[in-house]
Amino acid sequence: MSGKKFTPDWTERAPEPGSYRSIFKFGEPNEFKHPRAELVEMMMSEFGVTEEYFSRKQNEGNEKVSLGGKPGLNDEHINALKAIVGSENVSADDYDRVKYSHGQTMKEVMDLRMNRPRNVADAVVHPRDKNDVRRIVEYCDKHRIPICVYGGGSSVVMGIAPEKGGVTLVMKTHMNKLLNINEANQTATVQPGMMGPDFEAALNNAPQMFKTARRYTCGHFPQSFEMSSVGGWIAALGSGQASTYYGDAYHLAISQEYVTPAGTFKTLEYPATATGPKLNDIMKGSEGAFGALVEITMKIFRFMPENRQYFAFMFPSWESAVNASREIMQSEFGLPAVYRISDPEETDRGLKLYGFDNAYFEKFMSARVMKPMSRCVCMGTVEGEKGYAKHVKKSIGKVCRANGAMKLPAVVVKAWEKTRYKEPLMREDFLDFGIVTDTLESAVTWDNLLRLHKEVRAVVKSRPGSICMTHASHFYPNGTNLYFIFVLKPERPEEYNEVHSKIVSAIVENGGSLSHHHGVGKLLSPWMEEHLGKTQMDALRALKTHFDPNNIMNPGGQLALKGKSGT
Amino acid sequence: MSGKKFTPDWTERAPEPGSYRSIFKFGEPNEFKHPRAELVEMMMSEFGVTEEYFSRKQNEGNEKVSLGGKPGLNDEHINALKAIVGSENVSADDYDRVKYSHGQTMKEVMDLRMNRPRNVADAVVHPRDKNDVRRIVEYCDKHRIPICVYGGGSSVVMGIAPEKGGVTLVMKTHMNKLLNINEANQTATVQPGMMGPDFEAALNNAPQMFKTARRYTCGHFPQSFEMSSVGGWIAALGSGQASTYYGDAYHLAISQEYVTPAGTFKTLEYPATATGPKLNDIMKGSEGAFGALVEITMKIFRFMPENRQYFAFMFPSWESAVNASREIMQSEFGLPAVYRISDPEETDRGLKLYGFDNAYFEKFMSARVMKPMSRCVCMGTVEGEKGYAKHVKKSIGKVCRANGAMKLPAVVVKAWEKTRYKEPLMREDFLDFGIVTDTLESAVTWDNLLRLHKEVRAVVKSRPGSICMTHASHFYPNGTNLYFIFVLKPERPEEYNEVHSKIVSAIVENGGSLSHHHGVGKLLSPWMEEHLGKTQMDALRALKTHFDPNNIMNPGGQLALKGKSGT
Repeated sequence: MSGKKFTPDWTERAPEPGSYRSIFKFGEPNEFKHPRAELVEMMMSEFGVTEEYFSRKQNEGNEKVSLGGKPGLNDEHINALKAIVGSENVSADDYDRVKYSHGQTMKEVMDLRMNRPRNVADAVVHPRDKNDVRRIVEYCDKHRIPICVYGGGSSVVMGIAPEKGGVTLVMKTHMNKLLNINEANQTATVQPGMMGPDFEAALNNAPQMFKTARRYTCGHFPQSFEMSSVGGWIAALGSGQASTYYGDAYHLAISQEYVTPAGTFKTLEYPATATGPKLNDIMKGSEGAFGALVEITMKIFRFMPENRQYFAFMFPSWESAVNASREIMQSEFGLPAVYRISDPEETDRGLKLYGFDNAYFEKFMSARVMKPMSRCVCMGTVEGEKGYAKHVKKSIGKVCRANGAMKLPAVVVKAWEKTRYKEPLMREDFLDFGIVTDTLESAVTWDNLLRLHKEVRAVVKSRPGSICMTHASHFYPNGTNLYFIFVLKPERPEEYNEVHSKIVSAIVENGGSLSHHHGVGKLLSPWMEEHLGKTQMDALRALKTHFDPNNIMNPGGQLALKGKSGT
Repeated sequence: MSGKKFTPDWTERAPEPGSYRSIFKFGEPNEFKHPRAELVEMMMSEFGVTEEYFSRKQNEGNEKVSLGGKPGLNDEHINALKAIVGSENVSADDYDRVKYSHGQTMKEVMDLRMNRPRNVADAVVHPRDKNDVRRIVEYCDKHRIPICVYGGGSSVVMGIAPEKGGVTLVMKTHMNKLLNINEANQTATVQPGMMGPDFEAALNNAPQMFKTARRYTCGHFPQSFEMSSVGGWIAALGSGQASTYYGDAYHLAISQEYVTPAGTFKTLEYPATATGPKLNDIMKGSEGAFGALVEITMKIFRFMPENRQYFAFMFPSWESAVNASREIMQSEFGLPAVYRISDPEETDRGLKLYGFDNAYFEKFMSARVMKPMSRCVCMGTVEGEKGYAKHVKKSIGKVCRANGAMKLPAVVVKAWEKTRYKEPLMREDFLDFGIVTDTLESAVTWDNLLRLHKEVRAVVKSRPGSICMTHASHFYPNGTNLYFIFVLKPERPEEYNEVHSKIVSAIVENGGSLSHHHGVGKLLSPWMEEHLGKTQMDALRALKTHFDPNNIMNPGGQLALKGKSGT
């Protein structure tokens, strides 16, 4: 095995403007987070390759984007769109058409790396306001032109892929503002294209920017925070890392304004109602297939970082970590904000990565019955009012100790907190050498958690040379999610797809939900009918037909919804 | 004015079996709670009547129920239904047809008192299980026979009124069992006809009845608790008195099994999903218009009455009570279970009723700037883990004192707690003398609360001689509900309806929701389109058409949903 200090020649320059790489690269052009030497060593050991393997980059996607003359929208339509939004807000050039047609799905990234863009938009439009959106939807509905909506572009389920071409609306260009903070109700009204960090910064700085009495926080911090928009959070039902306390995007969207081919409406902003099924619910998670989300009123919270408490523990086993977590979520002493448990493989690989695999450490751990490939790390934060946060932290400690856990220093959580949005940046580095890191995730009730975890791992681990790290990070009284990170070195290009399919099938067959917070898009839609059943799918299709009778809104199988024509 | 001890000749015997009164009487036949002498005195003073007025009872409804030969379902259909559920479970006699066609809506009670039953079912069926329901729905759909579902019969919005006749399914006869408690997930699977007290008793006694390790509570205690069924809670989106902590029925229903003309399905039981709009949401609040709810999985909670904390305060004004309440709901120190604030009129009338209107009391109060028709009582409980409950109680105290409140003894809450389900029993006593007590309610955001309260009161008080007591009792970070109790002595029979309509209009016009927790039924449906707007109503109608294309499920305007025929 190679020396400790071996470092591959990671790419350290911004992608060429106009290149495929500039589209799929995660994060800012000049932002990098390279894998530590220990991680490279782990890959070499797992996949049986040498330093030499890490000398040959492949499919870097440095080529200029070109559609080779693929026709776009005809001039009549282009001009009509320009008349609505202004010529500067319509583009039909190859680069824009490719850029705004791809998210962060592994399949999409692989296609771009091989200079094979998927189906692309025929034109890209940047609406200035909700009125523009309404006029575009009316025009496109009349002329049967498909519409996709691009928020932050972070979909990992091909949620924004324009399967049928048409127009892609880019919301983040103009429709990216915080419109109003209502301090009495603690709500904020925001445009859908506002990006996570901008939203949070505006709320944190509300006293300066909006003359409010207090500072606020949005409470929603998905790993894609820096790359995702508020509209995308709601449309695809995302979940933030502090969701155990603040709730999922589903819980945060109090009211939505939607433009659909069947009309425009804003759902009523009441704390609760008993006036029939709620349109606000019906639209959440509709992933652009019913219409375009143009304004959202979000629940916001007092910003009190000074009250934040940190905790970390090591459990002797996955079972003990799960049992303690369940007790914490059901004990009614209050809830943590961030709360995560890592399974044995994720725990041990994490320890190795940070240099904790030495003999002294192992002796210390084994004296406390914290054995490799059995022990599990748990960590989190508590927010809220000061006394509440302290009480919850203390109570969590009690439950953890009663389940055999040992306290770890808070630095564990703080280290995680610091780099939490940057982890995906490593994906590019490995992909440059043909190693695929991807994730799949599911929600599961407590009574089925151990089985789902075991069966999905069995599928991944049935391959020689594979890494499967799992954590649970969104907790509820009746269950949690499981987040599977798997790393493969496919020999053939189709191999990745085959493994991916097998994992999804294993999730669904073993009692997991098809998605906890990534959404369905076009990637997971083949499993929808098996998962929900025909009767429930029929109801979703009825809504699709109602809102979008001509099947122009994100057509081509989003959420497994098809138009009357069957596509 | 009359002497203090005057007591009208309240009815103190169980209604005659077979009489109208036996149908509309609230509570058990032998259960009574008569108004205190102070309350009678208040009515005499308010309506300018003497003891003599309380000597003439009117429209007591003691007559035998008769439909005067009104035809029911024809024999062919009756026999078909008997073949499904057994002859003992089908009834077409006049009494059953009237009984199971009426809820507790004031209009319904008045009609029965005058021996004028409203539209009634053509037959009453008691399904034995969900399979029976499925076969009945299939049969009725084929033969276009309307179906209404009767849970506990406590609707106050004509939710169960069979406007088009047909079959009424009585769920509480057989489909009234707790099927399963899942301790890992803390959920209970229950049949829809199980009544509140039975459900709670089974959960409290789960260790004996279900061999569970713990005792549980359902957390849902509406005023109609003893008269309502679990299915009704969900179908009409009810709210319990401890909803501020436990959530509304909306939050408690984790999964539902529905029989609709378009098919039968059970929504998936995950703690969260991102697989499109959730059918579990779409069915909640559908009030029997999409199908029949046949099984529900409910969130349950650990039963820890030993941890319950009580608190009560007097605020100097409605504004100070509202401000403190908002601060409590937004401070993030945890939430109370029961939390109520009464407006000045409710507070002062309450004090008078319990004898607190003497000079000594007033001197004590005015020394603390707690003036009549300004001061407001606040009371509640905290539940959950012991330390949590104590911390929340302490924190509530701090906020109340900071807003000028004075502490009251806990006996105030305990007295309320003891009689809370029995208040509606007084309605019959007053109605025997032509005095109408009714309620309307709404949800409202904080920023609009004072306006809504003021404007609705103005409508009621514009009548000479009228009582309007208001409280808020279901709290959320972004708002609360307002519950208006109004007492009238209508001179003409139509007068009550006119006042009722005016109040509903005032609610909707002044920014309140059409209903917070009573539902819509057929009573409030005329306001639905104005309230939600046509585009949203169209979406609900599309769902109605999908699930129930022949408009057999609770037809005739429930939720303002009409079939294709327009009825």
